[in-house]
Amino acid sequence: MNNIRLGILGGGQLGRMLLQAGLDFNLYTLVLDPDENAPCRHLCEEFVHGDFKDYDTVYAFGKRCTLLTIEIEHVNVDALFQLEKEGVQVYPKPASLKIIQDKGLQKEFYRQNAVPTADFRLLAQADELENHLDFLPAFQKLRRGGYDGNGVTRLTSQEDFPKAFQAPTVLEKLVPFETEISVICARNVQGEVKAFPVVEQVMHPQHNLVDYLLAPAQISYKLQRMAIEIATHVTTALDIVGLLAVEMFVTPDGQILVNEVAPRPHNSGHHTMKANATSQFEQHLRAILGLPLGDTEPHCPAILVNLLGEAGYAGEAKYEGLPQTLQEPGVHIHLYGKKFTRPHRKMGHLTVLAPTLEEVKQKADTIKNRLKIIA
Amino acid sequence: MNNIRLGILGGGQLGRMLLQAGLDFNLYTLVLDPDENAPCRHLCEEFVHGDFKDYDTVYAFGKRCTLLTIEIEHVNVDALFQLEKEGVQVYPKPASLKIIQDKGLQKEFYRQNAVPTADFRLLAQADELENHLDFLPAFQKLRRGGYDGNGVTRLTSQEDFPKAFQAPTVLEKLVPFETEISVICARNVQGEVKAFPVVEQVMHPQHNLVDYLLAPAQISYKLQRMAIEIATHVTTALDIVGLLAVEMFVTPDGQILVNEVAPRPHNSGHHTMKANATSQFEQHLRAILGLPLGDTEPHCPAILVNLLGEAGYAGEAKYEGLPQTLQEPGVHIHLYGKKFTRPHRKMGHLTVLAPTLEEVKQKADTIKNRLKIIA
Repeated sequence: MNNIRLGILGGGQLGRMLLQAGLDFNLYTLVLDPDENAPCRHLCEEFVHGDFKDYDTVYAFGKRCTLLTIEIEHVNVDALFQLEKEGVQVYPKPASLKIIQDKGLQKEFYRQNAVPTADFRLLAQADELENHLDFLPAFQKLRRGGYDGNGVTRLTSQEDFPKAFQAPTVLEKLVPFETEISVICARNVQGEVKAFPVVEQVMHPQHNLVDYLLAPAQISYKLQRMAIEIATHVTTALDIVGLLAVEMFVTPDGQILVNEVAPRPHNSGHHTMKANATSQFEQHLRAILGLPLGDTEPHCPAILVNLLGEAGYAGEAKYEGLPQTLQEPGVHIHLYGKKFTRPHRKMGHLTVLAPTLEEVKQKADTIKNRLKIIA
Repeated sequence: MNNIRLGILGGGQLGRMLLQAGLDFNLYTLVLDPDENAPCRHLCEEFVHGDFKDYDTVYAFGKRCTLLTIEIEHVNVDALFQLEKEGVQVYPKPASLKIIQDKGLQKEFYRQNAVPTADFRLLAQADELENHLDFLPAFQKLRRGGYDGNGVTRLTSQEDFPKAFQAPTVLEKLVPFETEISVICARNVQGEVKAFPVVEQVMHPQHNLVDYLLAPAQISYKLQRMAIEIATHVTTALDIVGLLAVEMFVTPDGQILVNEVAPRPHNSGHHTMKANATSQFEQHLRAILGLPLGDTEPHCPAILVNLLGEAGYAGEAKYEGLPQTLQEPGVHIHLYGKKFTRPHRKMGHLTVLAPTLEEVKQKADTIKNRLKIIA
């Protein structure tokens, strides 16, 4: 363990939580991030200020590491291929990453590997849209660089074409779904795979917004098994080492379709830090260190409430209502080390624990609006 | 939260675990330690290399903080009194610390506050021992500076007097006991108190050594309630803000006697990081930040196995048998960030979790000798 130099590409909150878990393993850690005030800044042995999309920067950083991982998938993959060739352990592997970075390759990979997913077409340019009127309504997604809902637009008819992306995109058939779920799988160097239980995105009953994440998902046992089987299959097929978060839709006729994947710790797994003996972060480290994977059984039902910056506030963050929030038993806070808030910025999360699904939902409804992040 | 500058006196493993938990609260942290390679070195915004026993060093360090706490009790308390006077929040309070630092004052405090404890006498010098032959067998304990079994000697008869300490000591009547237990209490700025469940030191059946720590303790419900009541009483009487670990003996006739206390996170509470939703470290932070205390209920029984450097090895630590240890479900490792091992040095711990007491003991017996720390 003493000779491992673990490099992380990206120094945001996912890197921060990974470093937090990494303390248990005595790792020497290095972090590369373009923001000199990144949340990981003070938590590693070496912080390198630089661009993880730049070949030379990633290559030079990687040469100082024995083991390299990511907390964001939009990194320079060519540099990773070269580092792998020169003997650095790179997990997830560059070959897996190359497929995932490009939504077009990702979708083709699903088709080739019998992974259920919404029907799609690949477009080199927006002007090709004219040829696909029969395929609407559909989502047009940028093949590269999209994140958190950016790089996605909904095209219902020809009238929407002016807002279409002028770049290589995937045109994905709009699929009606009942529930959006996620399964986080880990696969270690030796090929052992373990999945965390299915998580459900619970929508707000009035607004069309995710209200919170609930574990376990409120779907039938059969659907849970199916979701875990599909996620395990994708993880193995993609030759993942580390974590793979697999986001899926459950359709009204009981089908499960893979929406997209992320080869790293994921927002839908943060509750595992409190609700499971093994967190997704410990699991990622076990996987890339070649250690046996930890037990993924939860202690109890859990809800994750994302803490976003209030609309209308930008500046140094203030946390209003924290004592009132934490006075509820089973409520824990996790802040991301960000000094400044802005509207809808992810500033942290609350984890809510209770012995039953009903209780955890009630408790989340009680406390979820008590805390406001203002400036 | 953004304006808090939390200083920690001491940068060892307890400080390290406190910083690890502190990440959840976005705290700006400063650490003072005389070892420039202390385990906290890379985990805080400001690491100050200096002696926490020195008045000027502690005072200057404290002036840079808004909130000051400790991970070791042998710090300069006069500087803390001065800092408190000048408006720094110091928790535990210097007045509590002053009593705890001196085993003589500690014992007198128990007597004055009706805390059950073994009978004792105070000695200014060892030559007074002649006057206390009637009090033997007894333990002679240094009033100040003892730790981890250092500063304690057993005197059975006059023949042991040559090994007696030549300093102010407590002579404590030897009490036969059946079980050694510990309760960690937290008390916050507002005076709310919560106790973690009772932990038992389980002795090795053959060797006269602590084998592991077991939570919950295998004592009757009535004794558990008594232990928690006593620990709560001591915590309140000492006006603790933060944690107080209360180590106690259970005697064959069902009495509980307080042995000693530590006003900080404690080895007997490390399992709470995995087995309880609120860890002792989160609880300490909630307490000193004036936040409501977290739920102390455990998810399941747990065992803590301390990982000590193997006898006969000194140098850069190597961890032999880690994969074999971690392949058992419910076993987690926590290393303390120490590069070098030496015989019996505390290098980390294992936490073992299982649904029942029997299972957790079986599992601990299976894995506890698999991992060796050598050089």
